[in-house]
Order: sequence, then C-alpha cells, then structure tokens
Amino acid sequence: MRIAGSIPLSARQPGQATTIVQVGPVAFGGPRVVLIGGPCAVEGRDQVIRAARAVREAGGSMLRGGAWKPRTSPYDFQGLGAEGLQHLVEARDATGLPFVTEVLDPRDVELVATHADMLQIGSRSVQNFPLLREAGQSGKPVMLKRGMMTTVGEWLHAAEHVLAAGGRHVVFCERGIRTFEPTLRNTLDVGSVAVLREMTHFPVIVDPSHAAGESRFVAALARAAVAAGADGLLIEMHPDPAAALSDAVQSLDPAQFAELAISCRAVARAVGRDL
Amino acid sequence: MRIAGSIPLSARQPGQATTIVQVGPVAFGGPRVVLIGGPCAVEGRDQVIRAARAVREAGGSMLRGGAWKPRTSPYDFQGLGAEGLQHLVEARDATGLPFVTEVLDPRDVELVATHADMLQIGSRSVQNFPLLREAGQSGKPVMLKRGMMTTVGEWLHAAEHVLAAGGRHVVFCERGIRTFEPTLRNTLDVGSVAVLREMTHFPVIVDPSHAAGESRFVAALARAAVAAGADGLLIEMHPDPAAALSDAVQSLDPAQFAELAISCRAVARAVGRDL
Amino acid sequence: MRIAGSIPLSARQPGQATTIVQVGPVAFGGPRVVLIGGPCAVEGRDQVIRAARAVREAGGSMLRGGAWKPRTSPYDFQGLGAEGLQHLVEARDATGLPFVTEVLDPRDVELVATHADMLQIGSRSVQNFPLLREAGQSGKPVMLKRGMMTTVGEWLHAAEHVLAAGGRHVVFCERGIRTFEPTLRNTLDVGSVAVLREMTHFPVIVDPSHAAGESRFVAALARAAVAAGADGLLIEMHPDPAAALSDAVQSLDPAQFAELAISCRAVARAVGRDL
Amino acid sequence: MRIAGSIPLSARQPGQATTIVQVGPVAFGGPRVVLIGGPCAVEGRDQVIRAARAVREAGGSMLRGGAWKPRTSPYDFQGLGAEGLQHLVEARDATGLPFVTEVLDPRDVELVATHADMLQIGSRSVQNFPLLREAGQSGKPVMLKRGMMTTVGEWLHAAEHVLAAGGRHVVFCERGIRTFEPTLRNTLDVGSVAVLREMTHFPVIVDPSHAAGESRFVAALARAAVAAGADGLLIEMHPDPAAALSDAVQSLDPAQFAELAISCRAVARAVGRDL
Repeated sequence: MRIAGSIPLSARQPGQATTIVQVGPVAFGGPRVVLIGGPCAVEGRDQVIRAARAVREAGGSMLRGGAWKPRTSPYDFQGLGAEGLQHLVEARDATGLPFVTEVLDPRDVELVATHADMLQIGSRSVQNFPLLREAGQSGKPVMLKRGMMTTVGEWLHAAEHVLAAGGRHVVFCERGIRTFEPTLRNTLDVGSVAVLREMTHFPVIVDPSHAAGESRFVAALARAAVAAGADGLLIEMHPDPAAALSDAVQSLDPAQFAELAISCRAVARAVGRDL
Repeated sequence: MRIAGSIPLSARQPGQATTIVQVGPVAFGGPRVVLIGGPCAVEGRDQVIRAARAVREAGGSMLRGGAWKPRTSPYDFQGLGAEGLQHLVEARDATGLPFVTEVLDPRDVELVATHADMLQIGSRSVQNFPLLREAGQSGKPVMLKRGMMTTVGEWLHAAEHVLAAGGRHVVFCERGIRTFEPTLRNTLDVGSVAVLREMTHFPVIVDPSHAAGESRFVAALARAAVAAGADGLLIEMHPDPAAALSDAVQSLDPAQFAELAISCRAVARAVGRDL
Repeated sequence: MRIAGSIPLSARQPGQATTIVQVGPVAFGGPRVVLIGGPCAVEGRDQVIRAARAVREAGGSMLRGGAWKPRTSPYDFQGLGAEGLQHLVEARDATGLPFVTEVLDPRDVELVATHADMLQIGSRSVQNFPLLREAGQSGKPVMLKRGMMTTVGEWLHAAEHVLAAGGRHVVFCERGIRTFEPTLRNTLDVGSVAVLREMTHFPVIVDPSHAAGESRFVAALARAAVAAGADGLLIEMHPDPAAALSDAVQSLDPAQFAELAISCRAVARAVGRDL
Repeated sequence: MRIAGSIPLSARQPGQATTIVQVGPVAFGGPRVVLIGGPCAVEGRDQVIRAARAVREAGGSMLRGGAWKPRTSPYDFQGLGAEGLQHLVEARDATGLPFVTEVLDPRDVELVATHADMLQIGSRSVQNFPLLREAGQSGKPVMLKRGMMTTVGEWLHAAEHVLAAGGRHVVFCERGIRTFEPTLRNTLDVGSVAVLREMTHFPVIVDPSHAAGESRFVAALARAAVAAGADGLLIEMHPDPAAALSDAVQSLDPAQFAELAISCRAVARAVGRDL
C-alpha cells in the first residue's frame, strides 16, 4: 500500500468501489465473472468464427484471438496482422461477441483501436512505455497482462502510464510468473488477485492457460482464480487444438471449454457471484 | 511424469485411487476437506487449549502448534520443546482433536512420535535426509511441507525418503514458494496442487497462512486452494493474534477462522466435496 | 547448445572466431576489453561533455548516455529526447569518443541511427520485436541488453530478430537478472558470459552498475566480468553523482571510474587481454 | 547493513579486519587465496589419495571429499560414511593436506569432528538448526555453504547459530543460487562475495563447480570469484571423472585442475593477492 501515492489514477481509495469497465455488452468488475475464450492466434476466417460460436454456446461473453503474435523466434509464425483483425471483426458480426486482441507496435494502435473492442497489452510489452502511452491515447479499454517477471508494483505503474496518457479503463490480467519451478509453464500467482483487489479500483482477471501450459491443468487453475476473487477468465480455446499453429498443448477444445464454464460457474456462485 | 519411475512408492499409477491417510478420526484424501487450525508456536497451556476449542467450534477437525520452532535468528524464541508437546496432548484430551506438530531434530523423533498424531516436517527440513528417514521409521503419518525453493520433483523424492525408510503415509503440504515478487510473504503455487494430484496417490493440503503472510489475504488463498482440489487446509489461528510470540501478522483470530471455514465450505461443495 | 539450430545467424559454429564489431575506432571482441562510461541520463550539454572527458582521461573509449529513459513511473523524468541526442553528438565532437544510446520507440530508430554510433536496446525492450526489427533494418550495430527476466535462450533469439531483419552486428550486454535475493539491485549472472562465448560468435559485455545498484560494489563486479571473459564494460559514471536525476546511488564519480579502469586493466592482463 | 545489529558475532564492525580462520597450515582470509580440491564423493581409498596428490601437485592446499552424501533420491549412492572418513584421514596422512568434509546428521558431528580438520555444512543444511548448533559446539572451524534458496541475510543468521552455540570460526561458501535461468546448474551470485566482505569479518570462498554444473565452465567462474575478492575456491576434481559415482559432468580432471590453478593465480596476483 506504500505505492498508492505514486499511482494516483489506479490506486483504490478507502471505501472506493470497483470501477466497472464496460466493453460493449460486457461489464468487467460487476457481479458476473466474465468468460473470454478463443484461439491463441487467428489462423483464418473459419477457425475464428467457429471458435466464437463455441465461446457463445458455452456461455462465454467475449472473444480473444491474436492477429499480431510476439514470438520468441523470428522464424515462427508471426500472425496474420491486419487480415487477422478483419477475421475477428467478422466473428463479432457473426456472433455478437465483442473481442480483445493484442497490439504490439505503437504504429498499429490506431488501426487496432478502430476495429477492436478492447486492446490487449501482452506480457512482453508491460513496460513498453511508448506502446502504453499510445494505447492510453486511443481511449479504448486496455487489458494489461502482467509480465513474466513483473512485480505487482511495476504492473500498477504500467497501468498508470496508460491512464496518465488519457486512458480511462484498464483491466489487469494475471497470467503466471516465471519462477524456479519447471513443472508448469509458469507459476500462477493467485495471491496477486487478492492483492490487486485491495490496491486498485480496476478489475482483475486471470489467464490460466499460459500459467498451466497444458490443457488438462487449465480448469483447476481457473476455478482457483474465481475462488480468489477474479473478475474474469481469459481462456485459450481452439476448435481443433491439434491443428493449432501456436500454443496447441495448452488450448482447450470446445467441449473442455464448456465443461470449464460449468465448473467455474459453480465456484462463482459459491463466492457470491455468477458466470 | 518422467519422474514416476524414480519414485515407485509415491507415484500414482494409472487409475490408482488416492490413498486415504487416517489420523485418528480424520481422513485425508476422502470427500471431506480437512481443516487444521492452531497457533504457530505453543506458548502455554491455556493458549493452546483455547485455540483447540476455537478450531472445534468452527468445524475444524485437527489441531496444529509448534513446540520446536525453526527460527532464522538464534536470538528469537525457539519454542517450549517437550513442555509444549505436553500442552498439545492436554489440548487433545480437552477437545478430542488429534494434533500435528513439527519435529526438527532426528533425536526428537521418538519422543514426538510417542505423543503426536502426525509428524510435521517443515519447509527448511524438506531435504534433511536423516530426519526424513527417522520420521519414516517411526511409522507415524508425516505431513511434508514443501521447501520455499523446492521443485515438485525434489518434493516427491523427499517423500520417497520417508517411504523408503518404512513410512507408510505422507500428506504433502504446499505453503508458497520464494519468487521475485515481494508483496506477499511467499507465492502460493496453487498449480502444484493440480500437478501433485496427478503425480502422487497421497493427499495434498495447503497452508495459505505462510504464503499470504498477512491475515487479511489468507481466506482468499484458502478458497483458491480448495477450488484447485486441495484435500485440506493448514491455518494459523491464535486466540489473541496481537499477543502471539511469532507470526502475529498472519494469524487469524477465532472469528476470522470461523468465517474462513464457512466460505471454504461453500467452495468445497461447489467442487463436489464438503468441509 | 540445442538451440544453435534455431539461431542460424547468431550461433557460433565449431571453430568460428568471434566477430569483431567495429564502432568507429572501437573494436568489440578483439584483444582489448572495451570500457564504456557515462551518465544514466543526459541532463544537459555540460554534464555530458564533462562525463565524456572523464571517460577519455580514464582510458575509456566510448560514451554512454540516455536521451529517452524508460521509467517505471510516468511521473518521473523521462529524458531530454532529441535534445539529449544533440548533446551526445556535441560530446563526441568534443572528445572523439563514439557513443551508444538507448532507443525505446520504433518511430525514433531512424533519428537515433542518424546520429548515434551504436543503438542500445534496453532490458525492458529485449522482446520488443517491432523495435528489434527496426533496429536491425537501420544497419547500425546494436547493443542488446538482457532483460531482467530473460533466459539466455530468449536473449539469443532476440538477437536473431535483429539479424533476420538485416542487422549485421550485435553486442550482448549482461546486466543482472531478477532473483529472490534482495541485497543488490539485481543478481549479476557472470556465468552467462561464459555460456554466450560458447553459443554465439558475437561479443559479450557486462553492465555491473545495474547489477550492483550501489556504487561501492560496481568495481568488484566489473573485475569479475573481465575475469570471466567479458569483451567490455558499460559503467554508469556521472561528473557529480549526488546531483544525478536518475540512478544516483549506483553512479561512480570520475575518480572512482578511473580507479575501476586501473583495477580492471590488471585483471584483463591476467587473462591475456588489455583494457 | 540493517541486519548488523541482529548478528553481533558475525557482523564486521567499522574498520575491523578479516578474521583469519586457520585450518592446520591453511589460513582463510589472509593474502593467499586458498585452493581446495577433491572429489564430490569418497568412493575408495585409492581414489581419494590420488585426488589429494593431484591437489598438492597443482599447488592446492586442502582436500575435500564427501563421506555422507545428501542425495535427492533415496535410491542413489549415499556415500561410504565412516569408512569414507577413514579414507580421507589416510589421504591426509599421505599428503599432509588437511581436509573438509560434510556432516549431515547432528549425531555424526562428534565422529566427524574427531577426524576432520573442518566441518562442511551443505546447502540443504544451511537452516538445519540442530546441526548448526552441534557443529558450533564441536569447536571445529565450519565451512557454511549457502543454500540454493538462501538470502544473504538468512545465511549470515545461520552462521550466527553456529557462533552462538560456541563455534569460533566460520567460512562462508557461495555455490550458486536457484533462479529461472536453466542453462547452468545454478546461477553463481558473485555479488554476494562483495556484499559478505562488507557485512561479515569472516572469510568467503566460492564453489564454482556446483554453480557451473559442467566442467568446461568451472574455470571462468573460478576466475570471476577470485577477481571479486573471494578468499578461496572449492573445486570438484576427480582422478577419473568419467568413472565418478556422482557429479561426473562437473568434475575437473587433474590436468584441468592444474590449469585452473595457474589461471586463477594470475588473477589473484592482479588483485593484490596470491594463490
């Protein structure tokens, strides 16, 4: 709480309610836990529309999908770019679901903001200050993923960059941190959800897919996140995981996604919310 | 799962059910999530009996309390030793609750095993191999806490030391790991619960108190643990936390403990169990 | 070495010599350990010219200084920008020392590349792929700092992004990683120098200032780096550290910098090089 | 430095000289960097005598070798125990070199202290408080290795346990810490050498073998340690590494050990010492 003074725009004041971040029909921070699903990368028009339909059928309320992909190697698939963005728009048209997509380059913010409902700042960009400023200036709601080795304090300050540049709405997204433990892809820091709920008035969601790294562990982490007080879940789901161009092993198929929704809904109700 | 071959006694075989670890009337690994409560350190007869009563009233089924305390500094309170053990016995007599207590020195195992219902091997002792062997030879059920920087693989092998020495029953206890994140005392690795349930046939419980380090974050972590599939909770509770000789800031008072029991019971039911 | 196949442009082939990266009169990767000094941030014309003179007098051969500063908080000094770049040019004119400066935004690469002798990609930008590509396309030599959270494998792949985009010359710069140990600002991973010398044919230098975080520990880390085989040192030095606008506690003054040069020269000679 | 008050016996007072720890003819903390070599585990009489002779021929002044081995798995070779201790005594008789060996169990301290010149407390035992006390009471000099997960503050307090129990002399041994970086076995924290030299009046040595994990990286780390100010080196060397029962890949052979001694001697002289 010592850092509250240095983050005037994101710090929760004593007694302050959570700020509702509205993205089309979806409200982050209200009584309903928001369920977002979709593929790691947009691979084509059919894939993303099929994914969006599966999200809607399972009771999810928002679509995710990457058009520009940050990849460790320059020789891996880097995403479809503007064409992928267009497919997301078509999936929204077909299903009514708003979508969030990552923007990597400050020069792309204007284009992405014109089409997307919410901008995602990815883990590797959490301290990309020119990008944060550009995202803030766009006026769009921003989903700010935690970096693999970002402290909660740095993360809050990153949000402050968005807000100080004119951004009005941030949603924090915990996605696992890098530790010495090699079993899972990352270590989900479920405690950060409880800490952030105290420190900031903006909503906090969780991406258990990148933390787990393997599909069979995703649902247990998702339930833990909801039980800890998360305002939403960001889940990698692919109509056909075995054919995915990236993150195949951690993607759920539509049936697993629907099952996750059911078990997380039960936990949400146990903590006085819904999904 | 590659390590399964090197831990023949603790690895879960395909299709194998969880081994029920029975400690008096308490069954770890069954449908009921076990709730253990009590002070960090045994400070006196009255304190521990009051704590035991508060545990029972809240629906808890087991008592914890440290008679020998591992302390970073040699100048801090080191515990009451054998006298503290006697107070735990008196608290069991007064309430009917079995108790678990830490043993630090292989030379104390025989004494502790004579009186305690379950031996705790603490975080700093998880690779104290002479102690693990002695605990195994005692025949008592062993609660094996994860070290602050122990991988899941090392932890499973530590259990194998207990079992190879003749121990029959181990209960794993996740308590948070050491990472770069300074906000909470440790980072609860809730994913380890899901991983261990796959890798070993022994039960897994969670200590959210040492992970949180501050009492107001304990309940959220406890709920997350139950949602992830933990078979039990180990909670620091003191009749009068402000007067505690150790871990004062992370101890719940009896009312907070009772509240935690209620909220965790709701989550337990949401995942098909009870508490 | 398993990753060599996926980094064709940066991997050292068996028997391949270190690639000399020439920056004006300075050669990275040759027999001489390159000593770079200068302030964290360019604060004004006089400050940077005085710093450059102190570097030259101590036997240093290159100037550093930040015109655009990545700052955790949006409310801290963000650098002088293009004006700071101009001061660095004046300092080069006054002393003959080439300079390296950080570029944060892909839209600034062209401007910086027009004036600077070498582009620095900072720790927070090591996986800023649009920036890496832009830097590669500029044709300028790139100093690529390791991120606080970056594995050696990811770091090598980041260099591959620069090279795949057309960059010809990269110099790696180890600057300490983030661990659980809180005493110093970061943990200098001196082993990464030895590992990189095996894995890549490009030179490797070390920034002990950010690792130490306090000026009195900088020289010991610098000597360790040279002894481990580093091809250069990047040192924060300010004409008047007490007045520095950033990184005051870790900056050396000119006398300490000169002393560091002397002691590191002795170590360089002990390992068959010079400085 | 805030912790100085809580470690009255190990904290260096302003202006206080380093305490010389004398082990037979060997002085830790003096102008000469102490070179200790020998096998990970004592495997037989001939092996350890051959190792001791190789140490002496290379200019080393002390022998190391494990009689009791802490092993992650209960099914791995656990050491020769008392018989191994006897072989170390024979090697000392044959070469005149004093030896250090690890003690794992408080019940073995008396036996080991009767024969060994110095007791080693291993990484996994750094917070084994009963063992620390027993070692302190033995009156023997203690080499205290840092745990994989131990902060400098905890390490200093561990030494204080030895000293508060009556121990007079401690030598700290940095051996690499556990971080997210997977390339080498551990991350050598060379900065801890500089920090400890400020915080404590006892000598500090470095074990580069466990940090490197592969023999070809050991010498570079050893040179870095000497350059940073280490008072000694603890090196794994086996007469025939390919036949070693443990730590084969990180052990030097006698020729590599002799080469390491030569290159480290040059660095020692560059920093005003000898070896």
